[in-house]
Amino acid sequence: MNQIYHVAVTGNDKWEGTKENPFQTISKAAKIAEVGDRVIVHEGTYREWVKPEHKGYSNTKRIVYEAAKGEKVIIKGSEVVKDWTLIEGTVWKAEVDNTVFGDYNPYAEALDGDWLIYPVDYKLHAGDVYLNGKSLYEAADFEELKNPRMRTNGYAAPWTNHPEPLLHPEDSVYQWMAQVGEKTTVIYANFQDQNPNEECIEINVRKCCFYPEKTGVDYITVRGFEIAQAACPWAPPTADQPGMLGPHWAKGWIIEDNILHDAKCSAISLGKEASTGHNLCTRRHRKPGYQYQMEAVFRAKQIGWDKETIGSHIVRNNIIYDCGQNGIVGHLGCIFSTIENNHIYNIAKKHEYFGYEIAGIKLHAAIDVQIIHNHIHNCSLGTWLDWQAQGTRVSKNLYHANDRDFFIEVTHGPCMVDHNIFASEYSFDNVAEGTAYIHNLCCGTMRKEACLDRATPYHFPHSTDVAGVSLVYSGDDRIYQNIFLGGQTT
Amino acid sequence: MNQIYHVAVTGNDKWEGTKENPFQTISKAAKIAEVGDRVIVHEGTYREWVKPEHKGYSNTKRIVYEAAKGEKVIIKGSEVVKDWTLIEGTVWKAEVDNTVFGDYNPYAEALDGDWLIYPVDYKLHAGDVYLNGKSLYEAADFEELKNPRMRTNGYAAPWTNHPEPLLHPEDSVYQWMAQVGEKTTVIYANFQDQNPNEECIEINVRKCCFYPEKTGVDYITVRGFEIAQAACPWAPPTADQPGMLGPHWAKGWIIEDNILHDAKCSAISLGKEASTGHNLCTRRHRKPGYQYQMEAVFRAKQIGWDKETIGSHIVRNNIIYDCGQNGIVGHLGCIFSTIENNHIYNIAKKHEYFGYEIAGIKLHAAIDVQIIHNHIHNCSLGTWLDWQAQGTRVSKNLYHANDRDFFIEVTHGPCMVDHNIFASEYSFDNVAEGTAYIHNLCCGTMRKEACLDRATPYHFPHSTDVAGVSLVYSGDDRIYQNIFLGGQTT
Amino acid sequence: MNQIYHVAVTGNDKWEGTKENPFQTISKAAKIAEVGDRVIVHEGTYREWVKPEHKGYSNTKRIVYEAAKGEKVIIKGSEVVKDWTLIEGTVWKAEVDNTVFGDYNPYAEALDGDWLIYPVDYKLHAGDVYLNGKSLYEAADFEELKNPRMRTNGYAAPWTNHPEPLLHPEDSVYQWMAQVGEKTTVIYANFQDQNPNEECIEINVRKCCFYPEKTGVDYITVRGFEIAQAACPWAPPTADQPGMLGPHWAKGWIIEDNILHDAKCSAISLGKEASTGHNLCTRRHRKPGYQYQMEAVFRAKQIGWDKETIGSHIVRNNIIYDCGQNGIVGHLGCIFSTIENNHIYNIAKKHEYFGYEIAGIKLHAAIDVQIIHNHIHNCSLGTWLDWQAQGTRVSKNLYHANDRDFFIEVTHGPCMVDHNIFASEYSFDNVAEGTAYIHNLCCGTMRKEACLDRATPYHFPHSTDVAGVSLVYSGDDRIYQNIFLGGQTT
Amino acid sequence: MNQIYHVAVTGNDKWEGTKENPFQTISKAAKIAEVGDRVIVHEGTYREWVKPEHKGYSNTKRIVYEAAKGEKVIIKGSEVVKDWTLIEGTVWKAEVDNTVFGDYNPYAEALDGDWLIYPVDYKLHAGDVYLNGKSLYEAADFEELKNPRMRTNGYAAPWTNHPEPLLHPEDSVYQWMAQVGEKTTVIYANFQDQNPNEECIEINVRKCCFYPEKTGVDYITVRGFEIAQAACPWAPPTADQPGMLGPHWAKGWIIEDNILHDAKCSAISLGKEASTGHNLCTRRHRKPGYQYQMEAVFRAKQIGWDKETIGSHIVRNNIIYDCGQNGIVGHLGCIFSTIENNHIYNIAKKHEYFGYEIAGIKLHAAIDVQIIHNHIHNCSLGTWLDWQAQGTRVSKNLYHANDRDFFIEVTHGPCMVDHNIFASEYSFDNVAEGTAYIHNLCCGTMRKEACLDRATPYHFPHSTDVAGVSLVYSGDDRIYQNIFLGGQTT
Repeated sequence: MNQIYHVAVTGNDKWEGTKENPFQTISKAAKIAEVGDRVIVHEGTYREWVKPEHKGYSNTKRIVYEAAKGEKVIIKGSEVVKDWTLIEGTVWKAEVDNTVFGDYNPYAEALDGDWLIYPVDYKLHAGDVYLNGKSLYEAADFEELKNPRMRTNGYAAPWTNHPEPLLHPEDSVYQWMAQVGEKTTVIYANFQDQNPNEECIEINVRKCCFYPEKTGVDYITVRGFEIAQAACPWAPPTADQPGMLGPHWAKGWIIEDNILHDAKCSAISLGKEASTGHNLCTRRHRKPGYQYQMEAVFRAKQIGWDKETIGSHIVRNNIIYDCGQNGIVGHLGCIFSTIENNHIYNIAKKHEYFGYEIAGIKLHAAIDVQIIHNHIHNCSLGTWLDWQAQGTRVSKNLYHANDRDFFIEVTHGPCMVDHNIFASEYSFDNVAEGTAYIHNLCCGTMRKEACLDRATPYHFPHSTDVAGVSLVYSGDDRIYQNIFLGGQTT
Repeated sequence: MNQIYHVAVTGNDKWEGTKENPFQTISKAAKIAEVGDRVIVHEGTYREWVKPEHKGYSNTKRIVYEAAKGEKVIIKGSEVVKDWTLIEGTVWKAEVDNTVFGDYNPYAEALDGDWLIYPVDYKLHAGDVYLNGKSLYEAADFEELKNPRMRTNGYAAPWTNHPEPLLHPEDSVYQWMAQVGEKTTVIYANFQDQNPNEECIEINVRKCCFYPEKTGVDYITVRGFEIAQAACPWAPPTADQPGMLGPHWAKGWIIEDNILHDAKCSAISLGKEASTGHNLCTRRHRKPGYQYQMEAVFRAKQIGWDKETIGSHIVRNNIIYDCGQNGIVGHLGCIFSTIENNHIYNIAKKHEYFGYEIAGIKLHAAIDVQIIHNHIHNCSLGTWLDWQAQGTRVSKNLYHANDRDFFIEVTHGPCMVDHNIFASEYSFDNVAEGTAYIHNLCCGTMRKEACLDRATPYHFPHSTDVAGVSLVYSGDDRIYQNIFLGGQTT
Repeated sequence: MNQIYHVAVTGNDKWEGTKENPFQTISKAAKIAEVGDRVIVHEGTYREWVKPEHKGYSNTKRIVYEAAKGEKVIIKGSEVVKDWTLIEGTVWKAEVDNTVFGDYNPYAEALDGDWLIYPVDYKLHAGDVYLNGKSLYEAADFEELKNPRMRTNGYAAPWTNHPEPLLHPEDSVYQWMAQVGEKTTVIYANFQDQNPNEECIEINVRKCCFYPEKTGVDYITVRGFEIAQAACPWAPPTADQPGMLGPHWAKGWIIEDNILHDAKCSAISLGKEASTGHNLCTRRHRKPGYQYQMEAVFRAKQIGWDKETIGSHIVRNNIIYDCGQNGIVGHLGCIFSTIENNHIYNIAKKHEYFGYEIAGIKLHAAIDVQIIHNHIHNCSLGTWLDWQAQGTRVSKNLYHANDRDFFIEVTHGPCMVDHNIFASEYSFDNVAEGTAYIHNLCCGTMRKEACLDRATPYHFPHSTDVAGVSLVYSGDDRIYQNIFLGGQTT
Repeated sequence: MNQIYHVAVTGNDKWEGTKENPFQTISKAAKIAEVGDRVIVHEGTYREWVKPEHKGYSNTKRIVYEAAKGEKVIIKGSEVVKDWTLIEGTVWKAEVDNTVFGDYNPYAEALDGDWLIYPVDYKLHAGDVYLNGKSLYEAADFEELKNPRMRTNGYAAPWTNHPEPLLHPEDSVYQWMAQVGEKTTVIYANFQDQNPNEECIEINVRKCCFYPEKTGVDYITVRGFEIAQAACPWAPPTADQPGMLGPHWAKGWIIEDNILHDAKCSAISLGKEASTGHNLCTRRHRKPGYQYQMEAVFRAKQIGWDKETIGSHIVRNNIIYDCGQNGIVGHLGCIFSTIENNHIYNIAKKHEYFGYEIAGIKLHAAIDVQIIHNHIHNCSLGTWLDWQAQGTRVSKNLYHANDRDFFIEVTHGPCMVDHNIFASEYSFDNVAEGTAYIHNLCCGTMRKEACLDRATPYHFPHSTDVAGVSLVYSGDDRIYQNIFLGGQTT
């Protein structure tokens, strides 16, 4: 009774989706695939936003989307742009019809929202331009576009008090900017000595690559794809948090064996949906952001945030790199998930913008989440557990060459951080309580602080039900059998 | 602090939305209007799907969308089609670029889903063609299109055992059909003696006219618009239930002083969203439809179906006519609402299709809903309360010239039906228990039955919490002080 | 079908409970009275703890317990003690068999628990001795018993910084103490110049007079009784909170037209039950009391604390006086209740002990509670709204001759305090935010403070669902049209 | 910080409860033992009802009550009665002061309530008389008491259509009856040729032996006791369900290594409390019992019936025999429990009364309950899973010499019944659906039926949330690899 649908670039959406007569788009399959069905995608590049329509019923009754074995399948949030005109120096221009964007024009969408703080003097956008796959920098203005200076240090957390260098400063002179008109959007780019008409130039046009439009699409498997170049927006814990790939407030996804890169913000999102609060602090200025964040927790309870309905995802064996905000992000939606054996690197190393949500993995309310055996390096921050990390285990991960490796914040535990190697110069920020640190190798420095002006929730064990809310007095940690090499004090 | 935004057909979405520099689309205002804001729309026709982005906070802190006082504002789900070619007899053809449809091509979307039963030998579609505002009939095939016979009786409920005549049989020879291609959709229409190039021909292209894309957009007021010609799909209680206008699973809307007509299915929907079940019976054939319907009730509890989160809408002073399925529809989402002083007529009187969900007002789980002082006539069925009508009051309504006036089904009460005039020949179907009928004037016949093979829920008083589930034994009614004229037995 | 049961001192519990053959105890009727039944009690004194066994179903389907019209019915928590022996000076002694106490011997039960702070150097007990109805003082030791000095000021709130005088200092030389043995309890009392063998001496022996032993006994009416002299324990918001009379965690009680006096602690309790926390701070010393109090709120949610299950009581037209802790007390269980037209006086005016829970009316989490048209005087504190007073209205009450009239603490509102007369010298303590004070006459002084080290919950409107937790920044009050006479600054 | 309290028959409740100065009653320890504490009881017989006052916090933070290692500790619900007078033939009489009963006189409490059907012509009582430990039969009247005939078959399920013999018919001529007066209760007993003044005669006087009076007393361990002779009442699923031993609506008890016998009704109860319905069908006659039972499920949800709050008990290594109704009973409260390695026999083999709740193990709503490796024989019915057995596993149990071994009723599964030996002549009643029977040895006959007039709930997987309610169509079973010896058709 269960169906197998095939998709191929040579297919046709009018066909039946069989191996012999495949569909042309994954989206076509995504509209009809039902519980128990399997969608096999064949070699090629698919420039579309796949929005799975139906849900699976249980861990064993799923809908599976996978790349055909041994075939290279790429889903891109970008389109190729040709016909560039040289206008001045090394600056070129191309005009794009606005119909390619639909409702969402990334070049009109400012990177904005709660907890985003830099740059302050001009707005960046969700759009991006890629020269042979490499993301350019957005110029502050036309002046900079024409005469870009190489950037060396980028925007970073103000309290760390040390500059964070760009990973590839030499890339920073490749820049773009855009002018959005009524019918078209004009892209300007400084390609330096490259002729865009002879190279592959892509611009991102879609918010997501594989992300349901509605909530509650449970038990989907996404396996074996390369996914890249989506114009996903800034994804703080007090807003709708879309990523390039993710469940959008559902249960039981398996995301495995994928390669994800060049998300404007977050590659994989296990985060929250919009109705529990969407940038209310930025938009309304009525209460501090953390108050809206706490309210989001209680609103989430009202729309069914619990173990039965949300979370329990598995994210494993993925390679994630070159994203602006996060490899993996998620507030509330991440509960009871396992994040295992992923390789995450080069997150926020362009340092184009900074907000309090940037890390290789950034989770809020990571109740009973397991972060195991990941390799995380060259990120501005390796892993950030913020608020309500309870029952969380961070184990056997390898961190190195990050500006900071690990940050646990305003959370009451219990958490377990064990058998990790923190090899960067700055190991920890500990603004939390109730964590056990066991059998870690810490090569860098640590910071420990209380937080006495902000109360955060704690939960009944293994539950999303709030048991109380408390200030973070700091302390109540257990530190056993670690090796501290002793970093340089900052 | 609160803003007033103006929209005018002469405006520009790049402008600030002031009275002097208005926006051009309501959608632009809908993207930025926040709690406390007011959107005033000026005279003209707006062909767009308005998707309010933000929500109000309470009954007194709303976002208001309204037509400017004394100005005629029309929102249409249709586009004008020109350039018709005569191909044979009175049959013309026009070709429409598929980009006007976006993701949803109504001419490719069959009218389908749970509880829809007629026609059985061919599929109708969500699309529709309008000749000077009048909806045409969809031909079964090209043969019928060329040589349409006048239809006199249409599809109707099988158990009523009497034919239900079309209100305007002479219209039924105006027909259309469509062929959906990869790039374009070709519309064929038999306009009889009319030349479409000299008349106004519109085809519906959008699923909704004013309906949030996401759930949870609370406390919106929609006032004073004429809204017409949306290609909304069949909306049974076990599916996503979009209407031309509605809150899409939210709380506290006020819908007042509008004129709604020519919805392909339902004009106003207070119904449920997709994640609690979307045509699972039709799609999966695993359980009977009523079992999925009961499961939807319990799933809804898991995503927060209760008085605090959902319902409490007010629908008043609207005029609704010429719709295929319902003037007002709603499962689950309608709780604690008031439907007052509306004029509803000509619902399903083309009789193009039949399913068990057709009525002027069709509500499921109408807990504590008040249906007061409405005027409902020339409908195939006036009002249908199905499942879990508890605390429901139907009072002071005037029914006449309907095929049937009122149907209350598989519900345990208590309900109050009082001070109504049921003036049609067939007054009641009572397949329920626990209703008080008081001070009604009943001019027609009645039917009363038990339902012993299907159990339906009842609730704690004034609550969505289920208190139990029971077969419908029939009885336990209170019938006081009614006047029964005694209709002709069917 | 519904029964009327009669109870008379001349009855017999073996009889049928008819008017002609009444029961002898109210307890007998309380064991069998079912929904819809009525228990009429005839003139006389009933020394028993009535524990209603069954519950009513709704506001109109109750179980009613009432004094027969025009007859004086007294329920007492005490027993008469005779056979006193003079042992020294004016000190007498009597020996009481422990079987009269059952499981609960008030002379072995220390007044103790969270938030009780004075006296510190010795323990008082739940027991009490009454000389012709007047409560004696418990001596600190035998020395004091023999040679009591008149007390003038009693224990009071430390922060008020002014002495609170006893209402009747001359009574304070009448004292008792007890020695609890294995089989008997020996009561010693200094009756001054009275001969106890010629007066009426009673000692309290029962914890409650009318209070279900189990939770969930809904919709009981208690009308027209005089109830007195129960040995009820200290009832803080973080413990089981029994009173002399009350519902013990249920819904929909009506308590009206009663006279209540001489409760050792609280006369009427609308408070919480034990499983959400019972003096955990005092017993376990793990967290501060306010943390346990917050946890009690969330635990209560887990056992069904909401509008459907708990609260909505009516307490009206009662006269309450001469109690040690409260006229009316209640944490959590008081939600959606109305306290109207009661006369409350002489609460804690013996000043024998002090804890942070003493007032004529002391409510926590008084969500949507109405306190209307009460007359409250000669209390150490008139009314104290503590934590989560939201939707609370305090209107048209007359306060005078209290040490303080009103205290609103660590709550975020909105609350309405209107049309009250605060005639005492010390009108207000305002350690809260979000209250509207309108049209009050304030004769005394006020105090206003923030509370920045303790976060308390606020709720969704008209709901027990927590919406957030916040520090109390103070402010956001509305003060309109009040008359402030201006008291003397303390 | 945690305390160890000692109890010994030589102790004194005024002492400190140390090993050297132990308490005299377990009840004294039960009043003060806190989380983390341990109560060790030393050799001897304790005639008391232990009501634990405080709760543990988690599986590892418990309060432990245990018999001292190697010492025989017996808790009895009975008292010894002496001074018997011979009044006629072999009938003796003794008079008991009513004060020994407190509020609950078992000789005045009829065995009664929902689902109890036999005997119909007279009422039995909760009381019982024991001659040297052996329970007597209650005579129908004085006539029978004087001239008892030996009973051979007892009351049994009407539909099984075959007589069920008494295990020891010769015992049935030992009989008693009682007359309850105002001050005393007179016990009459026919001891045949025994002289009660020379034997040990006990009568049960307490409802329970170890059972909290209030709900919510979590995480208690009860280990190593012999517990016997409680006057526990009939415990149907629609009433308060006390047993001789049990948690009374709480979470996380461990009951292990105990010997339990001679409960008048149920030895161990994991059942429900009173507020969700107490014999409403018997008392009110408004709806059928199964409707009240379903309502109890939904009411239970309102007071927090879920995995976080209720159930997850472990009952292991106990020996249970000679009880009237059940070895282990439990509706709702039993969820997520494990019942392992118990030896249960001689349940209801006096056959003094019959109701639809009698079995070695009788569970309703046994969601995710494991019944593993028990030895159950000489019961009228071995194990009965009734309503909502979902996620239940019955594995590796040995059944033999039962009137029937196993009954699964009106439940939708999934359940697993595997690796059991059903050695009695009547193996199964299967009035359910959705069970897998795997690798069982079935020596007897089976019966399979549908139930089409009664709908019962099913739940979301591993949850108490109701997912739907359905008639029981029967079928959908999986029967693999069983050995059916083929019993004799009944």
